[in-house]
Amino acid sequence: MGKKEKMVQQITSMQEDFAQWYTDVVKKAELIDYSSVRGCMIIRPYGYAIWENIQKELDTRFKATGHENVYMPMFIPEGLLQKEKDHVEGFAPEVAWVTHGGEEKLTERLCVRPTSETLFCEHYSNVIQSYRDLPKLYNQWCSVVRWEKTTRPFLRTLEFLWQEGHTAHATQEEAQEETLRMLNVYAEFCENVLAIPVIKGQKTEKEKFAGAMATYTIESLMHDGKALQSGTSHNFGDGFARAFDIQYTDQNNELQYVYQTSWGVTTRLIGAVIMVHGDDSGLVLPPALAPLQLVIIPIAQHKPGVLDKAYEIKEQLSKSVRVKVDDTDKMPGWKFSEHEMKGVPLRLEIGPKDIEKQQVVLVRRDTGEKLFVPMEELEEKVPQLMEQIQKDLLEKARQHRDKHTYIAHTLEEFEKTVVEKPGFIKAMWCGDVDCENEIKERTGATARCIPFEQEDLGSTCVCCGKPSKHMVYWGKAY
Amino acid sequence: MGKKEKMVQQITSMQEDFAQWYTDVVKKAELIDYSSVRGCMIIRPYGYAIWENIQKELDTRFKATGHENVYMPMFIPEGLLQKEKDHVEGFAPEVAWVTHGGEEKLTERLCVRPTSETLFCEHYSNVIQSYRDLPKLYNQWCSVVRWEKTTRPFLRTLEFLWQEGHTAHATQEEAQEETLRMLNVYAEFCENVLAIPVIKGQKTEKEKFAGAMATYTIESLMHDGKALQSGTSHNFGDGFARAFDIQYTDQNNELQYVYQTSWGVTTRLIGAVIMVHGDDSGLVLPPALAPLQLVIIPIAQHKPGVLDKAYEIKEQLSKSVRVKVDDTDKMPGWKFSEHEMKGVPLRLEIGPKDIEKQQVVLVRRDTGEKLFVPMEELEEKVPQLMEQIQKDLLEKARQHRDKHTYIAHTLEEFEKTVVEKPGFIKAMWCGDVDCENEIKERTGATARCIPFEQEDLGSTCVCCGKPSKHMVYWGKAY
Repeated sequence: MGKKEKMVQQITSMQEDFAQWYTDVVKKAELIDYSSVRGCMIIRPYGYAIWENIQKELDTRFKATGHENVYMPMFIPEGLLQKEKDHVEGFAPEVAWVTHGGEEKLTERLCVRPTSETLFCEHYSNVIQSYRDLPKLYNQWCSVVRWEKTTRPFLRTLEFLWQEGHTAHATQEEAQEETLRMLNVYAEFCENVLAIPVIKGQKTEKEKFAGAMATYTIESLMHDGKALQSGTSHNFGDGFARAFDIQYTDQNNELQYVYQTSWGVTTRLIGAVIMVHGDDSGLVLPPALAPLQLVIIPIAQHKPGVLDKAYEIKEQLSKSVRVKVDDTDKMPGWKFSEHEMKGVPLRLEIGPKDIEKQQVVLVRRDTGEKLFVPMEELEEKVPQLMEQIQKDLLEKARQHRDKHTYIAHTLEEFEKTVVEKPGFIKAMWCGDVDCENEIKERTGATARCIPFEQEDLGSTCVCCGKPSKHMVYWGKAY
Repeated sequence: MGKKEKMVQQITSMQEDFAQWYTDVVKKAELIDYSSVRGCMIIRPYGYAIWENIQKELDTRFKATGHENVYMPMFIPEGLLQKEKDHVEGFAPEVAWVTHGGEEKLTERLCVRPTSETLFCEHYSNVIQSYRDLPKLYNQWCSVVRWEKTTRPFLRTLEFLWQEGHTAHATQEEAQEETLRMLNVYAEFCENVLAIPVIKGQKTEKEKFAGAMATYTIESLMHDGKALQSGTSHNFGDGFARAFDIQYTDQNNELQYVYQTSWGVTTRLIGAVIMVHGDDSGLVLPPALAPLQLVIIPIAQHKPGVLDKAYEIKEQLSKSVRVKVDDTDKMPGWKFSEHEMKGVPLRLEIGPKDIEKQQVVLVRRDTGEKLFVPMEELEEKVPQLMEQIQKDLLEKARQHRDKHTYIAHTLEEFEKTVVEKPGFIKAMWCGDVDCENEIKERTGATARCIPFEQEDLGSTCVCCGKPSKHMVYWGKAY
């Protein structure tokens, strides 16, 4: 059994062509399908089940921190979009415009929301009157549209699914606290559920969100050494409040502007999981995220007692893990490959010989390790293994990231590293956008973030040699 | 205490102006807010929490019957929409058209999905090859857009939230079975969760879905005697399969077309709940649906021990019901009114005197009934009461519906009943669309459905006097 019998169509190897490997995996693992709608994807049952787990985990965390879900219209009238100057400049070039309803031409165009700040602001200006109405801690699960030229499943699509949190607070301090609270929620979720380690930090002025005072980000490193912005949290100060006139009466009966935040993660997190954990046999899912955590594959299932035993074990394990029996009439080797492709964390093989010996074979998807486990120990062993796999995946990803994080003291060093060793580059920066632009032009790398955990790598900017202000993580990014 | 202290702004009474009462309730119970987007609504936290409960209950039922969730693009290229003739004729006049992406004019217009049959069909034609791939049992939670001229919150909006099930089967029998299975799931959900009794039946040819072979419906009766179509399930036969070329190889290695169904319910169910159970104090929610099932209102909460006791009871009850303490600094009477407006099924009052007597006061939202309950019996009594309220609401709605269901043997009787006694009218029909049209023209009533439970009310059509084929439920409808 095993690799030799592999009958699922081979995918391109990561080393050979990472982009093609990625495309092969999203298709062969049945995460997505293409449609005749340019740049949009169909999220198939297996892909959507992963998204549902992401939603469930995050939604629990949002509610535990006092947030409530709402639903805003998907359209934004052109006039409303234009109310905040920076915001409209950032988004207007990439929105889809509805110009006709039925046969009738609209007097004002509507854009399909690229993000919903303007709608939340309009609503807040209606419902916030007094300090008693604050804070407002709202979140929305929906789809948004950005008219991208080049697209890739999960990473960059015309339409994508996401959540957008929008909050309003009495003071700037509270808004800042909220901004960082939600960034930490994202980071904890990525590490504990997705098994993806992240760098937390602040975006540069150049990279921040259109209309924000400050943008914070979590950045992760993919297997090919490229960075992926995995979630952002914005402090708006009172900029939107002034543009939309969102005021409240404080305890001294004086009118004050509110302070706002917004924060979001998207289906691109699924892309991150693929590119951080996947291998040449396909997807590798961390147990906390996997729709199916353990698949039972009967060997010689036509032999008496085999299927019964498989169902019995399924019943027994279903109290603690998401489990199913693959009792289709395909060959075991084919089933192995299929579930490897789909990244199921653990495979359980059970055949006549195993039944005789009162044992089963467990095979870890992440390491390929084979374990012979007495049946009586299964109930204890399987949840333990799930925890171990979850932990090991995070550790492996952390090691990969650390191994592919480099330091550059000069621009020459920087350029050489980008070409020869794809990964994060840590380098000092003076804070000047001209240097940021020059680095991008010469190397293709962008400032991923100014990390909260600063390191002292010297006192001069890697680009201009003037005194440095920050240590920055740089990298080529998706 | 009680009504005299009511400080929440009064709403219009149902008797005076039902439409205005409805609008008052959706606003004052904080279910929705209007925005500057014509015909679209903002679903506020309380309204959305109700929708989340609807989703949770239905999604559990869909998964228990083997369905999987997916996500399709929100756009449909004009050419794709036009593939099934009846379907495009039904929907094209009421869709929103995207004509520009960013600065660029599109070569082919995209409509914002009014429903997703065409996208599912295109996908099915890609992923269905063999009988092994069948059945495909997919569902999607999303928002859709129909360019309505006049709109009302929840009942008819430009954009609304819904679920759409789309399935493909090997045989016509299986498709028919599925169509009725899902209609029954809807009916059971409406009765057991929403406490709304429904009439199950088939739509007439005139009223069926654009592109369907047969449409089945559940119809409910609102407090004002108008009907509301509450959910539909369609059998498409192989019509879409032929238009989209969805074929599979059967066990004899022959090519066959698949047979399809689709079925959906929307946020209009929230409108149904409002109009079936509500009263002049606002919303009345059945416990199974209510985001908050019991509110604890401390009386004289500044007195020592009162709030502590309230929190203690909350802890105790939170094992079995969704409960909170309203410890804001408003007057108790104000809190009473607010939670009445929001339809919270049960109110618990606790003050110094109650603590002395080791009892609490429970007040039912649906009947106003006051019960004095010893604290030690609370844990047993509260879940019992929830069940009782749930049951009573359904029974009350059933009685209201039955009381407002009339029989007409002649068109004169029919016309008189429509004017004088709003409700369902049962009458025999010959099956001819001309009679259906004439009835609509003369009375404003439409054929709600040909119920599965047929009754023999005579042998002649209520309109033309020719031999009748069916007993039909008629009514004015939302």
